Amino acid sequence: MKKRIVIIGGCAAGPKTAAKSRRMNPDSEITLFTKSPQVSYSACGLPYYVGNRIDDIKKLEIRTVDDFKKNNINIHLNSECTKILPHKKEIIVNNEYVPYDDLVIATGAIPNTPNIKNCKLKNVFHLRFLSDGVNVKNIAKMSKSVLIIGFGYIGLEMVEAFLNNGLKVHIVENHPHIMSFLDEEFSDLVEKYIKERDKDLVEIYKDDLVTEFIGEEQFEAAITESGKRIEADFCLIATGVEPNTSLAKDAGVMLGYANAIKVNHKMQTNIENIWACGDCCTKYCLITKLPTYFALGSIANKEGRVCAINLNGEEEHFPGVLGSSVTKYYDFSISVTGINHHWVMDRCREHNVEAISATVTKLDRPSYMPEARPITIKVMADKKTGKLIGAQGVGIGDVDKRINIMTSALLKGATVDDFMHLDLTYTPTISGTIDPLLTACYKLKEQM
Amino acid sequence: MKKRIVIIGGCAAGPKTAAKSRRMNPDSEITLFTKSPQVSYSACGLPYYVGNRIDDIKKLEIRTVDDFKKNNINIHLNSECTKILPHKKEIIVNNEYVPYDDLVIATGAIPNTPNIKNCKLKNVFHLRFLSDGVNVKNIAKMSKSVLIIGFGYIGLEMVEAFLNNGLKVHIVENHPHIMSFLDEEFSDLVEKYIKERDKDLVEIYKDDLVTEFIGEEQFEAAITESGKRIEADFCLIATGVEPNTSLAKDAGVMLGYANAIKVNHKMQTNIENIWACGDCCTKYCLITKLPTYFALGSIANKEGRVCAINLNGEEEHFPGVLGSSVTKYYDFSISVTGINHHWVMDRCREHNVEAISATVTKLDRPSYMPEARPITIKVMADKKTGKLIGAQGVGIGDVDKRINIMTSALLKGATVDDFMHLDLTYTPTISGTIDPLLTACYKLKEQM
Repeated sequence: MKKRIVIIGGCAAGPKTAAKSRRMNPDSEITLFTKSPQVSYSACGLPYYVGNRIDDIKKLEIRTVDDFKKNNINIHLNSECTKILPHKKEIIVNNEYVPYDDLVIATGAIPNTPNIKNCKLKNVFHLRFLSDGVNVKNIAKMSKSVLIIGFGYIGLEMVEAFLNNGLKVHIVENHPHIMSFLDEEFSDLVEKYIKERDKDLVEIYKDDLVTEFIGEEQFEAAITESGKRIEADFCLIATGVEPNTSLAKDAGVMLGYANAIKVNHKMQTNIENIWACGDCCTKYCLITKLPTYFALGSIANKEGRVCAINLNGEEEHFPGVLGSSVTKYYDFSISVTGINHHWVMDRCREHNVEAISATVTKLDRPSYMPEARPITIKVMADKKTGKLIGAQGVGIGDVDKRINIMTSALLKGATVDDFMHLDLTYTPTISGTIDPLLTACYKLKEQM
Repeated sequence: MKKRIVIIGGCAAGPKTAAKSRRMNPDSEITLFTKSPQVSYSACGLPYYVGNRIDDIKKLEIRTVDDFKKNNINIHLNSECTKILPHKKEIIVNNEYVPYDDLVIATGAIPNTPNIKNCKLKNVFHLRFLSDGVNVKNIAKMSKSVLIIGFGYIGLEMVEAFLNNGLKVHIVENHPHIMSFLDEEFSDLVEKYIKERDKDLVEIYKDDLVTEFIGEEQFEAAITESGKRIEADFCLIATGVEPNTSLAKDAGVMLGYANAIKVNHKMQTNIENIWACGDCCTKYCLITKLPTYFALGSIANKEGRVCAINLNGEEEHFPGVLGSSVTKYYDFSISVTGINHHWVMDRCREHNVEAISATVTKLDRPSYMPEARPITIKVMADKKTGKLIGAQGVGIGDVDKRINIMTSALLKGATVDDFMHLDLTYTPTISGTIDPLLTACYKLKEQM
């Protein structure tokens, strides 16, 4: 009999598992259920659709139902799985029982909903599905102002998107500094750039919390903990996500860190023949060797691939993650990898790692090149072993390249000594003779 | 008595050694002799000065004589050292004896001069000193056509520089394909781009050799081995460089690979108190563990720094190089690292390394982003150990980032298995979910 692979979830990890499974095993029966009206779409592209950099929402559909059909993969849209019955090896979708030989849970993450009074109003949005993007773009086109709650990656990307639509943007962040995964000095540089570039167009409220919405049916204003009243034509909530795991939990699938589904390096859960991948799963931090959690499309895709390989009888281990991430606000980049945040450092200390750091601000190219731009990079190492453990960077120069070079160095535990002489490429149009990363390592070396 | 540090050579490694020595040892007497009329300049910037991207030649002077004077470093311009007397610990400059406690040879590289009949004509140039850049730019402004001999990095950069001055460019390369350090398929992509972009403006003659110049005093035309006559208003010779080591050799300093000065990881030569760094020295290849040679400003600067550290009594080892390099032709990048060239592969085979490779052409960002551009990347590994050994890449997309990520992975001998799940950053404006580098690794994995 044909092996029946059933996948729940249609954004990134699920479709990836389906496509890779098909390539590995032409004979299996592959069925994917998603509660969304689309499958295999790039939610990460939504800010650029709203911001008019992508003209057609259809471009964010990576693969359509027809594409999958051609590969003999059955996609059921608008089909929410309501129960998993592991002992029967069945799931329930639209009140029907669907049997599986192998089940893949790729239910992703759902937006955090902050505790706000009177929050069930029209004109309050999250960004998750393509339809959210369409709705937000439509209202942006008719509006003059917006309130964004949450100043992380999506918050920042949506500031740009709304500015591109000519809106006045209000944005509230409950941390004392924006992009709170950055160190304060780096966060300040981001805020400075926004203020220099878009002075009167962006109003930032830090260290404050929206507690109540004003309006009868429609959103009219928000009241904050500090007593501010912020009026806007509509509101976008971007306060992060949490793993979408209630379905799995009800079925007895074990959860771990951050209430995400606990998986091993083969993407297996605690229940036989039930696999999980993507934003609904725990991650393993390559530096701390501890469980961690990130909801990132890059990781989801890789996990989907590894999941497919293992469930189709070959073996491959997904080693873990570094939490590498990047975004841009117009020409200004923000990028991090590994252990670089103050709060992770605290966690390090608990594990007897003494982290040291060095920060460098330097041009990304020789000063004589007109295209030279400054970047600020912080590199961190474990003082005892000399091993590099992470980096963060911001600036209008090429930050992302440096962070990825560091990501690669973290892979095999390069030390400051190993890394400081690294033979990086050099040509005046792209880079300088001594990269800012290496200058930071020279400074680290002096501390050791 | 104050320690007397004498340095011969004023481009990159020499000035770096001087500056770092001063920071380490405020009391030493530091004297630098250079036969050039400038010190501490970026020869790598000359194509961009000629090509009108840098408006003032003075911008290429990284540090002036006055800058050094302020740090109590004596610079002697136009001062050629004609002899080293190791037994007396003296050198001869302008017929005067100059004593040293430590001598640093940083004499760099000199242009290869091809064997051409009637080559002593006016209007035939090399690019080495800033004055060469000024002379070439002046003649370019008055001319309509140019012949470049040699199609490597400098040749390519000068094609762009001359096109920016409105010239018709003829360029001769004796290898069967241009940029001969690339594999043929990659070289072809570069040539295709040039032809698409600048069809009638660039005439490329491959697999041919200039054997004779025509002209009485002034260059008028070149005759090639295949019998072609190429007319142009002036000629630039860019056929690579060789280490400038005759002075060192005469003094009994041992030469090694490629007739470069043999140095250890501390930048010591075979003669006590004589050090060497920069383009005049042998390099050590981190992958093959064999001596090699590259003339690159990035390496020269790093070696100058390490040389200074060791000669001032501390210890630091320069581990070696990967031959990482990059250049751009307008928006098209070419970048390599490690063992990626067919001829190095041949050398590998001699040492019992079976190299395998995978080539991927892919967009550098998600296809829905308007700024997505293709890159072609080849990744190589040692089949037996699975270790990555190098990569080359070309394209209008962000090639250089990928090559540097690979450079970093080569540092600690990452294998294909280690690298293929690497947690690189992702955001649609900068990169895709699965980087082309990782896709190449998936393909390599299939071959293993």
